[in-house]
Formats: sequence, structure tokens, C-alpha cells
Amino acid sequence: MPELRFDPIQMRWVIISTERGRRPSDFHQKTEHSQSTFCPFCEGNESTTPLEIYAVRNNGSVANGPGWKIRVVPNKFPALKIEGNLDRLGEGMYDKMNGVGAHEVIIESTDHQKQLHELEPSHLEEILKTYRVRLEDLQKDERLRYILLFKNHGVRAGASLAHPHTQLIATPVTPKTVSLEFESAMRHYATKERCIFCDVMRQEIDDGRRIVYNKDEFIAFAPFAARFPFEIWIMPRRHNHDYSLEDDATIVNFAKALREILARLNASLDNPPYNFVLHTGPNTNAKPARPNHWGTIKYDFHWHLEIIPRLTRMAGFEWGSGFYINPVQPEESAKFLREVEIKGL
Amino acid sequence: MPELRFDPIQMRWVIISTERGRRPSDFHQKTEHSQSTFCPFCEGNESTTPLEIYAVRNNGSVANGPGWKIRVVPNKFPALKIEGNLDRLGEGMYDKMNGVGAHEVIIESTDHQKQLHELEPSHLEEILKTYRVRLEDLQKDERLRYILLFKNHGVRAGASLAHPHTQLIATPVTPKTVSLEFESAMRHYATKERCIFCDVMRQEIDDGRRIVYNKDEFIAFAPFAARFPFEIWIMPRRHNHDYSLEDDATIVNFAKALREILARLNASLDNPPYNFVLHTGPNTNAKPARPNHWGTIKYDFHWHLEIIPRLTRMAGFEWGSGFYINPVQPEESAKFLREVEIKGL
Repeated sequence: MPELRFDPIQMRWVIISTERGRRPSDFHQKTEHSQSTFCPFCEGNESTTPLEIYAVRNNGSVANGPGWKIRVVPNKFPALKIEGNLDRLGEGMYDKMNGVGAHEVIIESTDHQKQLHELEPSHLEEILKTYRVRLEDLQKDERLRYILLFKNHGVRAGASLAHPHTQLIATPVTPKTVSLEFESAMRHYATKERCIFCDVMRQEIDDGRRIVYNKDEFIAFAPFAARFPFEIWIMPRRHNHDYSLEDDATIVNFAKALREILARLNASLDNPPYNFVLHTGPNTNAKPARPNHWGTIKYDFHWHLEIIPRLTRMAGFEWGSGFYINPVQPEESAKFLREVEIKGL
Repeated sequence: MPELRFDPIQMRWVIISTERGRRPSDFHQKTEHSQSTFCPFCEGNESTTPLEIYAVRNNGSVANGPGWKIRVVPNKFPALKIEGNLDRLGEGMYDKMNGVGAHEVIIESTDHQKQLHELEPSHLEEILKTYRVRLEDLQKDERLRYILLFKNHGVRAGASLAHPHTQLIATPVTPKTVSLEFESAMRHYATKERCIFCDVMRQEIDDGRRIVYNKDEFIAFAPFAARFPFEIWIMPRRHNHDYSLEDDATIVNFAKALREILARLNASLDNPPYNFVLHTGPNTNAKPARPNHWGTIKYDFHWHLEIIPRLTRMAGFEWGSGFYINPVQPEESAKFLREVEIKGL
């Protein structure tokens, strides 16, 4: 069973997950994991993944066989497991609990190569609706406090399989980074009765220098204090804290924005490795309910997608300080992305 | 001039530093920076670095020429600059200030290859005393709130030059990660009147499973909630918040511990890329002084060195959540390091 452990000095939880069966000796530098040619995510190889949780399928096709368009399966080497109790426990001055949660893979299409922005627009929309389906479903589990959707594209961005896929990890504690966003959003709302994200968007639109995309109810921009070159956030203009509550029309517009931004990044940087993470609201169904804890969250928070091309390396300074050095002005990144020529959109 | 910018949503400062002269187009994937064969840190090439700030030299040798053992120079492409005023300024809902600070390189020896643990013990001691000299000196600058010493070893750990060196970045704001440690340490002391680090050490020694080294007044252990395989913290047994206040005898013992831990990591993992960061206390001379802000820091905090071998990749989950997945139990990492055979220590 994976385990969650809390560090009282750095005030953070860590997942200790030995499911991948890696031993200390596996980290010897000479052992490079060679990329296998067999792909468990390609059509016809359904039996090599755990049983599917959800799929978008052609009429008449059967679960766990071919004939699908999008397929959601549990991660074969999950960081967290869905069965069991949390069993919260102290160990001297430390704290731990069982690694209960979910770790799923959303296989985006049967195509082993095509990236999100290269798929048919309607296919991309279906993928983004699949994100919504999985959020809705997992939010019923009252052990889960947060569900994070993310994508690793390219080896340098941490992808271990090349076939395009998104992942989802649901955790029994609210992750630090999103907690921090909730906190600043709540504090802002508490004093001003305005959403901090709506305020940021207003300023970005007025200013204009960091905007990359602004149409069909979505904006994309390089944040004022971007941590990385070409870091881009995509946000819906209309306030909504929870991605799973979006209607179809908004998802269609989100697909347009995402498609264009990924195409612009790809054209600018020649297929860069990247990560994206969807920051949506917390699971307000989680128990034990905290009185008033999420009382104003629907006013405070505003879902968004953060895209981070992996062009620079994290080094000792960043690890040690939590401070980032960005060698490119966000205004320059935005200008470059706005002006790059993209074909076939 | 580099610039510091604050993100009101993620509540963090970022350094926007374009000194390296990288343009957006430099990040195109095909542009791989080839490692040059010329080394500005080798003896005889002193004129290719900025003028030296400090050096340990053989008798009779002249500053900025050959004949040195250890050399401290400003980084040629500094993330922050020592001249100028902070000029704190708001920009709508954002905040910024000039990137005032220091960015120095400590060239560890004239040897282009030898790593810290391969140097003569007395040479390593001199390097660790040089850290102290630079801390003492920079702490006189009241604009600087924190001075972080760190090391990047290997390309995967972010080293851009192969010649062994340590770096130092002094910042006009306290970095988030150390702030957090100060905060938990202060809170612990406020209620218990005990140092949280001393408490952690006591529990680790009693438990024993995560200890790698315990002699001559220093311990090294894999933290209970280690973020990474083989993450190791080295701490002095005797409470002291500020590395720059350590006496020579303690530095000698620190050198022994560091030497043995690096040798054990090297023997276990075959010259792994790694980072280390020295977490020492804040610059209590910084102005404007905050009344009582650092009133109890000398009781609260305890300096230590965090070593992180770079064996796994940060992926979307870690970026998006601030949550780490460690595939190896700290107890296993510690056992492996304890048991590995090392020669010539």
C-alpha cells in the first residue's frame, strides 16, 4: 500500500509509492530505461491495461476491446490506490496515512503520434468532456479532497509512454499549490468581494502586452510573474470555480483556445516537451465536512489551465528557495506566441 | 536590470532576468547548447571571469592571476545585480522591484574534474570556511534578506559548466521555502520552547532506520517524508541557527560528514547528478528591521544541508500540486547508503 507522510518542518505531504517496484539499485546511473516498442495504449492492446473505467466508443464496440475513440483506465503503476481506509496515524512527531486515492490515464485517441492540437476539433472537445466526466464521478468519493488533471508531453516533461495521454491523480489531502491558490483567492474575496482571477484577467486585457489569445469567452496569457519561458495560463472569461460544472458550449470554446495555444507553442518551439495542469475547485463533497471551509469557494476560485513548456532545468537554487528565475520576459514570450505563423487552424 | 515580480495568486516572487541574453527564439528545440571545451574556471583563465571577490591563495600569488586554491567571483550572467536601489513599485494589482542582490560562484579548486569528496580533507574544509566568509560578508548588506548557497552537479542537475563550483544567490526577499521552514520552526518553538530540528534529530536517532551517518557531532539521515530517492539532510547536533556563526572545529566535522555522504551517494549511484542547498538563518541585519520578526530565530531555527540526487523527473503532477511522489522508501535509501562499500575515506 502506498503511504502519505507529512514533514513537520517543510509542512508538506509526500506520497511514498513503491508500486513501480523500483529498488534503490535501479537508480544506478548506468541503468537507463530503454523505451519499449510495444505500446499498451494502441488499439488492439486493450488487454494489457487494467480494465477500463470509462470510454468513448463507436456504436457496437465492446468494453476492453478495440473500437474506442477515448479510453480511461487505471494507471498500471498507481501512485495511490482506490481501495482501503485512510488510517490516519501519528508516528512520534510525524504523521502518516494510507495512500488512498485514484490514479487514472486518459488515452486521448488511438493515434500513437497525434498531439491534442492535431486531432479533429470534435475529438479534442470529447477529450475535454471526458475530463469533466471523470471529475464528476470522482467528486462523489468523500475520501478525496482534490482531483488533479495533468499532462506530461515528452520525456523531458516526465512522460514515460509516448502515446498521447492525460493523467489524473485524486488525493485525500488538498495539494499545497492549489491550497495556496484557494487561500489567496479567499483572502482577496473576503476583503473585496471580487474574484482575484477575474481581477487579473481585467488587468491583463486592459494592459494587453501579455495576452496571447482573447476570443470566444476565453483568454490565454503569459502571467505577470511567469516562472518559466512561455508559461501560459488559459482561463474562461465567465466566473466558475469548478471545471466539472461547465456546460458543453464552454467546453467547445475551451477546446478552441487550447488547440490554438498548443499549436502556437508547437510552431514557436518545435514540439517542445510540456506539462499542463488543470486547477479546478476542491471536492466540496469530501468528508469529514469542514464547517464553512468551502463556504465561499464558488465565489473565490476560478478554474484555469496552466501550461509549462519544459525548456529550462530546475537547479539547486529553485529547489532550495522555491524561487524561480525566468530568463525571458513574459511580454516577450507572449509577443512571440502571438506573432508566430500557424497553419491549418 | 533584472526585475522581481510578485504573483498575487500563487503568492510568490519570481526573478525575471534577461541578462543571459536569451531570446524567445533560443528555446527552439533544435538549438542545443553545445558544451564548450574552454573552461573559464581553470587556472590560467582568470581573466575570463569577472574580478575575484575573495580567494584562498598560495603565498605570493596575485589576485586575478594563477596560484589560487579556491576562488570566488561574481557570476558572469548574474540572476541579480549588486548595484542599485530596490525601487519597490505597484503595477495595478501586481508588485515589482529591481533585481538587487548577489550572484557569486565559488570555484572549488583548480582541478577541472575532482568532486568535493575527492579533494584533500583540508581543502574541503577550506571550501566550507569560504561559505562562511561569504555569508558573513553579505550579511552586512542590509538590502539582502537571505543568502542561499547551493550546488548543481551534472547537466541534469542544472550545471552549465563542468568545473566543480558552488553558487550563492542573495535575495532582497526571503525565499518561500526557507520562509516556510522558519514559520514551522517558530510555531513549534512558540508552543514547546524546543527546536523542531533538534526534536526531529532526537526521533531519528532513537528510531535509527533512516540514519546514514552519526558521528563527530553531525548526523545525516533520509527525512521521514523525503521527496526524492536518496534525499539526505546533514545537520549539526549542537543547536545553531546560522552557519556563519559556526566555529572551525564544527566546520571540520561538517566536512567529514559531507565527504562521507557524497562518497556514499557516489558509490551507490555511480556519480549521480545532484543538488545541495544550505538552509541557514535569515540575514538579521536586513533593513527595514521588522520589530520582533526575528526575535526568536536563534532558538527556532537550525541550519542544515539538504542533498537531492536528481534521479527522477519533475512531471505535471509535481508542478501542479507541489506534492511529490517518492518511489523509494526513505528507510530503504538509508539502508542502501549505510551498507554500500566506500574506499579511501
